[in-house]
Order: sequence, then structure tokens, then C-alpha cells
Amino acid sequence: MIKTETTWTPRTDLALEIGATLQAQSQTQTIEGIDIQTEKNQEYPITTTSIEIINEQGVKAMGKPIGHYITIESPMMKENDPDAHREIINVVSTQLQKLLPKKEKLNVLVVGLGNRYATPDRLGPDVSGKVLVTRHLKEHAPDAIDESINVVSSLTPGVMGLTGIETSEIIQGVVENTKPDCIIAIDALAARSPERINATIQMSDTGISPGAGIGNRRKQLNEETMGCPVIAIGVPTVIDTATLVNDTFEHLIESMLENAPNHAFYQMLQQVSEEEKYVMIKEILEPKLGNLFVTAKDIDEIMVYLSEIIFNSINIAVHPGIGLDDINKYSN
Amino acid sequence: MIKTETTWTPRTDLALEIGATLQAQSQTQTIEGIDIQTEKNQEYPITTTSIEIINEQGVKAMGKPIGHYITIESPMMKENDPDAHREIINVVSTQLQKLLPKKEKLNVLVVGLGNRYATPDRLGPDVSGKVLVTRHLKEHAPDAIDESINVVSSLTPGVMGLTGIETSEIIQGVVENTKPDCIIAIDALAARSPERINATIQMSDTGISPGAGIGNRRKQLNEETMGCPVIAIGVPTVIDTATLVNDTFEHLIESMLENAPNHAFYQMLQQVSEEEKYVMIKEILEPKLGNLFVTAKDIDEIMVYLSEIIFNSINIAVHPGIGLDDINKYSN
Amino acid sequence: MIKTETTWTPRTDLALEIGATLQAQSQTQTIEGIDIQTEKNQEYPITTTSIEIINEQGVKAMGKPIGHYITIESPMMKENDPDAHREIINVVSTQLQKLLPKKEKLNVLVVGLGNRYATPDRLGPDVSGKVLVTRHLKEHAPDAIDESINVVSSLTPGVMGLTGIETSEIIQGVVENTKPDCIIAIDALAARSPERINATIQMSDTGISPGAGIGNRRKQLNEETMGCPVIAIGVPTVIDTATLVNDTFEHLIESMLENAPNHAFYQMLQQVSEEEKYVMIKEILEPKLGNLFVTAKDIDEIMVYLSEIIFNSINIAVHPGIGLDDINKYSN
Amino acid sequence: MIKTETTWTPRTDLALEIGATLQAQSQTQTIEGIDIQTEKNQEYPITTTSIEIINEQGVKAMGKPIGHYITIESPMMKENDPDAHREIINVVSTQLQKLLPKKEKLNVLVVGLGNRYATPDRLGPDVSGKVLVTRHLKEHAPDAIDESINVVSSLTPGVMGLTGIETSEIIQGVVENTKPDCIIAIDALAARSPERINATIQMSDTGISPGAGIGNRRKQLNEETMGCPVIAIGVPTVIDTATLVNDTFEHLIESMLENAPNHAFYQMLQQVSEEEKYVMIKEILEPKLGNLFVTAKDIDEIMVYLSEIIFNSINIAVHPGIGLDDINKYSN
Repeated sequence: MIKTETTWTPRTDLALEIGATLQAQSQTQTIEGIDIQTEKNQEYPITTTSIEIINEQGVKAMGKPIGHYITIESPMMKENDPDAHREIINVVSTQLQKLLPKKEKLNVLVVGLGNRYATPDRLGPDVSGKVLVTRHLKEHAPDAIDESINVVSSLTPGVMGLTGIETSEIIQGVVENTKPDCIIAIDALAARSPERINATIQMSDTGISPGAGIGNRRKQLNEETMGCPVIAIGVPTVIDTATLVNDTFEHLIESMLENAPNHAFYQMLQQVSEEEKYVMIKEILEPKLGNLFVTAKDIDEIMVYLSEIIFNSINIAVHPGIGLDDINKYSN
Repeated sequence: MIKTETTWTPRTDLALEIGATLQAQSQTQTIEGIDIQTEKNQEYPITTTSIEIINEQGVKAMGKPIGHYITIESPMMKENDPDAHREIINVVSTQLQKLLPKKEKLNVLVVGLGNRYATPDRLGPDVSGKVLVTRHLKEHAPDAIDESINVVSSLTPGVMGLTGIETSEIIQGVVENTKPDCIIAIDALAARSPERINATIQMSDTGISPGAGIGNRRKQLNEETMGCPVIAIGVPTVIDTATLVNDTFEHLIESMLENAPNHAFYQMLQQVSEEEKYVMIKEILEPKLGNLFVTAKDIDEIMVYLSEIIFNSINIAVHPGIGLDDINKYSN
Repeated sequence: MIKTETTWTPRTDLALEIGATLQAQSQTQTIEGIDIQTEKNQEYPITTTSIEIINEQGVKAMGKPIGHYITIESPMMKENDPDAHREIINVVSTQLQKLLPKKEKLNVLVVGLGNRYATPDRLGPDVSGKVLVTRHLKEHAPDAIDESINVVSSLTPGVMGLTGIETSEIIQGVVENTKPDCIIAIDALAARSPERINATIQMSDTGISPGAGIGNRRKQLNEETMGCPVIAIGVPTVIDTATLVNDTFEHLIESMLENAPNHAFYQMLQQVSEEEKYVMIKEILEPKLGNLFVTAKDIDEIMVYLSEIIFNSINIAVHPGIGLDDINKYSN
Repeated sequence: MIKTETTWTPRTDLALEIGATLQAQSQTQTIEGIDIQTEKNQEYPITTTSIEIINEQGVKAMGKPIGHYITIESPMMKENDPDAHREIINVVSTQLQKLLPKKEKLNVLVVGLGNRYATPDRLGPDVSGKVLVTRHLKEHAPDAIDESINVVSSLTPGVMGLTGIETSEIIQGVVENTKPDCIIAIDALAARSPERINATIQMSDTGISPGAGIGNRRKQLNEETMGCPVIAIGVPTVIDTATLVNDTFEHLIESMLENAPNHAFYQMLQQVSEEEKYVMIKEILEPKLGNLFVTAKDIDEIMVYLSEIIFNSINIAVHPGIGLDDINKYSN
């Protein structure tokens, strides 16, 4: 049994969860090269965590590029509560605005990643199909809109298994033609913790990494590959089954030890690294579970809430003339 | 730590899985009061297992009422293979016919249980919405059909959470008005084994038990409550998360013991009954997982295959004049 | 060419349109046995017309039974305007309350008529699937609700072509089991005038007549057949193609006469009764158009607005504890 | 009242209907510059009409560019008859193959035009979402496929109202990246004749013209704009309401004249050109009907048949190794 040297985390797309793992591992609140700020809403259970990865030390620790990672957590996202959703939209749009390029007459391309035919993966297509688009109006009906409205176009490229084309190739072609100031890319993610499923929105200005999310997108979407900043908005909608079993296993062993402390057993478990256990679980589950994942029973309904929260937040963040009173007024 | 006396099984709706657990526990192929027959298809990987619970001993062992339980297993159900589906329809319709009342001018009510708005639970509504219905033709256009067609009506009662009415109350009212010779009730089930998900069709002539399936139907549908035989057709489309973790845990411990035999640990584990472990897992998972379950990534597509297999099998089993050459010809 | 004696109207389900035709025919505002009141909203273009058929003279004139017919018209119903929808919900719920039995602890059965698989006919199923149901809570979790909430259950019986069962037979069974004080039945209708499509809500306390609507329901749903008052809520979502052609034809001839008055022609047209022309058009169109109808291009989206307006109006009208601030808070 | 000089036709996207109008106008079977061939299937009511526009005279007469226009008509397309669909697929794939570039290792881009959220306009997205794509396999798993499979990728660009981007701009970007030998573009069309709705497949090698179809695509998709041949596949799924009224009006006047010949009237009608009448109808209908169209009652179901026929025909026409026995085996 060999302890691996490198920091290791079970599969998660959330910077917040990686940060939490790191904090647990280092048993301290401060991690070199990373700045973490937390803010709580007064009225609703909404927590905003801003992680900034400042330098290479932070990059190494987090396994993510330099940049801002904003995570908004609220169990109300998955509940049918329009008032709470309004406040969440308020928070998300405010935070999103911080990540947008500071520029007048902003030109934004909204890209909905994911597979519209797989419910927990359709968040991206749902948002890109609903967000207010204005680019054609600026061209074909310029009098219809004024300076309170910026230029927005939207693209739903589909997934490679259904198109035969790398998603990034489709987006690149459109970027060349529409020349946006930035891309906002929406994607469904995988999380580690059941509590975070459908209850967390993560935004960053560093784009989307390969292998992330449900559908294993293959190529990076970021400023380097796209030629303009890429703001990623992600919501975890599934848990990787092996990760779930692994985490339950940890809790289970803790419970068992509380009930029947056994030193020999404890010593043995100490010798098994977290990674080894995960790999063992993965080996057991993979042949059986290849195609299974953990999701919410009412995922169809929750997808409506999540896409409404995100497309309204984008509308408000992007257009000076749209505010909280316009929620759901500008959807397709 | 107390070993429970009673035979116990993690959550499954499949007689086959209970039987397998029993066989493993008794370490013998024969279980008193139960007759098990297995048949394999020549051409495709399709296995048919017929379990008959003969007497009270069998009832006690299986925890299910006296009657016939036919399980058809094939991984091809979830694959896009029309030829294999044709053969599966052949097997399912032949077996279903054995369970139908032997009678000329049969009058059948097909009931699709489950929630059409939750993908893995919509199997029932999909089938009852697609099956060939003829009852209104017999009444309103008698010349349109002859004796090769029996009387079929169909009902999709919805789930109590969306109707406020017990499913059985809705069905009873219709049974009183349509006076069928038997009910065929289709429902999505939960299974224990990942391999069986979307790859198993279970049929029985004993109706549907309370608490089974995904949606926790509350009242029994059987000859006693409905006044006519109730044939249940079920397909497991989800795994209970606690059951999955429990089973993985078992395999994991086996693996760990193989790698590092540890007597103290082994002794402790021997003292923990399967049920206790399940309850512990349940306790850990429940507060976090209340609303999560394990399902297939391509569940939307698989639901189309499964509902086609089942409604075609019903059409063929019920009507003397419909055969394998008519697959998909009589759907709504 | 024979002028028919009886009053005749092209196909419409709207009392309002029959009334308008009658007023046009009688060239007067007053029709014996019928009381018509109109009210306009201050802020939004919402018109409420209350027609009361008082006696047999009114019955004969209108071709509809004695009772109240309330029609709420607003082009904003089909627009994406949440503020206008809120005001429409205010008007509809207020009017609906007038039709409900005056009783404490009201027990209401909401029935969604129509075919959920045909978009313009799915209004009923959309509403009955979304309305707040409480009957099971009163039974299974009585502490969860108080006297501010009445008893509501909901049923989506489907259409005879897909069930083989008369809709009324399914409803009767449920009425016997749930013993409601009244039924609220929602259905999509056909209208005569293009302007009214998706822009009119008709409510009456006289139930639903046979042959009305899109799907040609066959049997009456009213107090006589159901044993309790039946409040019908209908929205025209299609136009009968022959009716549309007929009406256009009328306008066309008027235009042609204006441009080129021709006495011989005018005389001939005067000899052709409205009904004869309709029958001729019907004869020309029927063989070709059997299965075609006129509907809105964005019908999928409009259905969402209409079902939201109606289920929220029902929630507010039925439950003392639910008001305009709770819009969309209690949907399934 | 002025007779217009130019040949005029009510709105239709079908070359066949333009040809029929021309033949009726010229009262002859031969039209200069146009070659018309008709073929009937032996077993099923399937008619194939091949129109070739040979020269500028034909271009002028038809109002369409030089090229091949193949129309396959069958009422069985909209019926649930798998055997007839198989034969239609046979005919369509054979004809489609004639239009494809003659080349080994063909690289094809399938483009699904139209709005997936408007049922009669979703034909294109349904086909491009279902067709077998292989381009990513050639790149990422070359051993998985052999020379019996050609390179296919697929794109569903969406409509400008939902993306803010010209459809042609999105396609151009992808064409530059995937460099196909030809594009196959699928679109829903408008027809003149009710009989042709959902019962006609039109294919041509001349691309797609602006303003055609339901959604008023704005820019041409053809070899000139795309840099590779564009094969268009269209199915009429709606009728323009004004066209329908116009045609009914024609039939109606004929009927009236038969019943009551009136010379003055007849003379007047002779003075009204077809175009003038259409414009008058349009003027009457437009303000009321802006957003209405005529479509089939069971359009949702028919869309499944049509998309299956077309994606299977493309699969068979494009890949040497796929034949009629593989129908529905290679869909996503």
C-alpha cells in the first residue's frame, strides 16, 4: 500500500469542494496562493463564496487556473419559491456582472453546453434557448432597441456524440463571425456532495476545463482557445456514483468506529489512502455502473427553476436596462 | 449488535433478486415451497426465469403472495437493436399470454402506474398511452373490428401527489364501469443489482404490493381489492441509493480482506449483520439523499425501447389477430 | 336556394360569439331572455362579459342551457407579460369564485379534459397536472394544512381515442369515490374569430356540452350526469378551418362589392344564406382538410401562459389562504 | 382591375406545385426548359416526380434555379404503417443518392433547419438530432468503423429569433472547420395543397432559397454561399392560411357558378386576376391571422414518422454499408 504524494480529490467540478478538501487536508483556513471570502444573505439561506487563485502556488493546490471562482449556494434553488428565486437572481446577477468585461456596448455570446436529450445535462441548452437575444435586432431593427440593451447572441452547439463535431470547433466558427467581447458558457456539472446537487451555481472567468461536467467535453473553452474571455456558469446536477459510495463509506467507517472502536481495524484503514479506496470502489462499480448516475427525483422540474434563475441573471447582468422587476419578461 | 432472526433483503421489487438472495443464504438451489425454472433463448441473450410460489412456506420465504412470477432478462432491452427487441417481444408476449385468463372475448383494462413527469417513473403512462385500445370501437364502430380483436381499454391514473386521490380509488371507479376480465398494470420498479436496471421485465399474476416501485404506491392492486385478476408488469429503472452503497460496500470489504486479511476486522464485520449495515448506510445517506436516486444516463431513450417492447407484447398477447409482423403498427 | 328558418351559427364554443352573432342578426342590443353585462379593466386591456341565460327564450336563442357564462378577453394572455398575467389572474379568480358553491370546507375536483399529446388540446391536462391538490394531505397529513386550505383533487382522464373509455365514465367513478361539492372542468375550445384564439377564457356553471371543443367529447358533463355542479373553464385554441374560410369569404365579398358594385352578383349572394355558404365551404374543404386546423405559431409557449393563468386562478378562487402574492408558488 | 403580366403563384415551396400551376396556365404538358418525369411505385401509393430545370427559360418559368427537383408523394408518410415507411425510405434513399456527389470517402454535413420549439417546424432539428454521425469516430476511434461508413457530421443551428445569429453564419463557421463534400439541409416547408401536407418529400441539389419555409430563413444556403453543394430535403407541414382561403374560394366560386350560372358575375370574376384575389384575401386575413397557420391535428405523431423516414434515408444513401435491414438501428 503506497501513499500517493500528490494531492488528490474524488471527482468534482466545484472549486468550492476542492477548497474544502484542501482545507480539511491542511487543517487550516489559509491556503497559500488562494484567497477565500464568504458572504451570507440576510433574508434567505444564500451563501456566496469567492475564491481567487492568485499565483502558481494556488494553481498547484487547486488544480485550476489563476482567476476568480464564485460559488453561490442555496437549497432554495431547487424549491418552488419565486421570492427566494428573485433574491438568488439578485445575487447571481450581481456576481456575474463582476466577471463581465467592463465595456460599453458589450457584445456577449451565450453558449449552452450539454445534451438536451439527457435531463440533468440539458441546463446549458435550456439557458441558451431562453436568454434574451438582441444581436439580430441591432442589425435588422436597430430602432427597436436603445443603449440600455447590449448585443447578445446565443448558441447551442450540441454534444459531440450527436454532432460528430468538437463543440469548440462549432463555437470557434461562430466567434469568428460574431466577434463577441466575451463568451458566457453554461454547463451542468458533477459534484461530490449530495447537498450541493441543484443547489449551487459556480461562476468563473477562467473558462471550462476538459473532462469536466457530465458529458466529458474534450477541449478547453478559454480565452486562449476562443480569443475572448470565457465566463463559465455551472450547476452540479449529478453525483458520480463512485464518489458517492466513497463518501458514504468514509462516514460509515466513522460510525462503525464510534460504535465499536477497534485498533487493528483503524490502523489498517489508516494505511489505505483515500485515493486507493476510491480506485477500489471505482473498480468494483465501473463494470456495473458504466452508464448510471445519481440524480434528483424531480430533476425535470428543478431544471426549469435553475434555467430561469440563470437566464434571468444573465439578462440582468448584461443589459443596463433590465432589472429584477423584469424577471421572466424577456424569455423566448 | 444483535443479529436479526428474520430473513431480510435490501430494497428490491424483483422476485428474482429475492430468490437469489435466498439461494445464497440457504446455499442450496432448492427452496421449500418455491419452484424455479430457467430458460435461455437460442439466438439472443434472453433469459426467462419462472418462479412459482406454491404454498405458505414459499410465501414466508419470499415475502410475496402465492402465484407466478416470470422474469425476462436481457441486456438488449436497453440497446437500440430492433431485431433483438422483436425476439424479446416474442418471449414477453408468450409468457404474458400464460398469465391471462383463458377466455374468449377477453376484456382487459391496461393501467399505467407512475408519474409521467419523472422520466424513470413514466414507463406505465408511456405504455398505457401507446397500447391499442378497442373498447370504444366495439361500442361505437362494431363493424370496424372482428373476433380477432379483444376488448381493451386503458387508464393512466397519475400519482397521488399530483391528483390528491389514491390510485386504487381511480382504478376502482373505472373497473366498476368497464367490468374487465383482468387488469394489466405496468409500473417502474427499483432493483438491487445495477445489471438488472432497464434489462429486466417482471410479470406476475398476483398484482402490485404497497410500497413497491419508485413512487411508493400505497394500496394493493390485486384480485381482492379490484374484483378481477391483476397482472403486474414491472421493469426496474432505478436503484435505491442506499442499496447500491450497501452492495458496493460488501464487495469492497471482500476486496480489502483479500488484499490485507485482518482477523480483528473480520470478526467485527461478522458481528455486523447485513441488515444493520444497511440501516447504518440508510441513516448516513437518508438526510443527504432524500430525493436522489441512481438511474441510467440515457434513460429518456431507453424508456422508448421499454415502452415499445411492453405495449407491443400486450397487443400480441391480448389479440388473437395481432402477431410479430404487426410490431409498432398499432400504437397511438 | 332555401333560406333556413332556424337561427344558425358557424362552429364556435363561445357564448360570447353566439351572442354577438345574435345581436348582429337581430340588429339590436337586447335579446329576450338574456342579460349581458360588460366590464373593462382600468389598467390592462381586459374585458369581462357576463351573459346570463335567464329563461327558455334565452335557451332557444343561444342554444345553450340556463346559467351564467363569463368571458374574459385579453390579448395579453398570449404575450409574455407577467404583470398583465397577474391582473388577468386577479379577474379570472374573482369571477370564478362567483360560480363556486358558497360553502365552508369546499371539496373540489379539477378535471383536465383533452389530449395531452396534441398541443392545442393539452390545456386541460396542463392545468389538472399543475393545480394545487390537497385531498391526500387532509387525509394523510392533516396537520400540514389548516382551514385556509380547501380540499382539492385532480383528474386527467385522457381522451376516448387513447383510453377506449368515455371520459364521463372515468370521471363518474372518481366522483363516487371523492364526493366533491363541485367539478371544475378545463377544456380547449374552438372559436370563430381569429382575434379570440388564445385570448379568451370562458367560464360557466352549466357544464360542458357534447361535441364541443377540439376533441369532440361525446357526453355531457353537468350536474345532471355528475351529481354535482360542473363549472367549465374553456379557452379557444383553434379555429375550425371551414369557419375561418367562411368568415374570410364574407369579408372578401364585401370588399369586392365596394370595389365593383354589381347588382346581379349582389342579388345572387343575397339568395345564398350564410348556412348554405358554410355547408358549401365545408363540402369543399372536408375531404381535403379532415385532419387540419388553424392554430398559433407559438402555441407551445402560449399553452404555458394559459395553463399558469388558469391553475393560479383556481388556486386563488378555491383556497381562502392563497392570494395574488402566491402566484406560481403552489404548482406541481 | 388590372391583369398582371407576370406569372404568379400563391405561396408554396414545392417545385411540383409551381409546375402544376404552370401546366394549368399553359394548358399543355410541356414547358420549355423544364423536363418532368413521373414514376409510380408498384406496391404502395408512392409517386416520384423528377423535375429538371435545364436552362434560363426554365428558371424564368419556375422561378427556381437550374438543377434537379425530386418530389416523392405518398399519403402513407403520415400513417402509422412501418411496411409502407420501409418502401418510402427505399425510394427516398435511392433518389437522394442520385443527388449526392459521386466520390469515395464522402464527407457530409447534415443541417437541421427550423425551430425545435414549434412542432411543425421541428422536422430539421429532429432529423439532424437522429442521423448517424461518424466524423468523431473517424478521428477518435478509427478502428470502430471501416470503409463501408462515410464521414457524417450534423448541426442544428437554431433560428435567428432564438440565437440572434443568421443561420448561414453558424453553418459557414462549421463548414470551414469540417470541410464537407456536401451539405444535406432539412427544412419544414409550406405547401399550397392540403393533400400534400405531411405527404410529400422534396429534394433538390440547388440549396435553399430565402424566404422559404415556415420560419422565413433570410439567406440562401447554396454552393455559392457555402462553398460546397447543398442538397435540400423539405417536407410541407403547414399551409399558409391566405393560400388555403384563396384556393377554397376558387373552388367555391366554381360550385356557385355550377349551381347558378350568372353571366354578369362570371364576367366580373374573370376580370379579377388570381393574384388580385390573393392580395385581397391576404389584406383581410393578415391583421387577424398574423400568427396563425393551418396544420395537422396529429402533427406531433406525424413528425416522428417523417423524421424517421428522412434520417433513415440519409443513413442508407450516404453509407455503402447501411441498407434497408438497418432501419432505425443507427439513431441517436
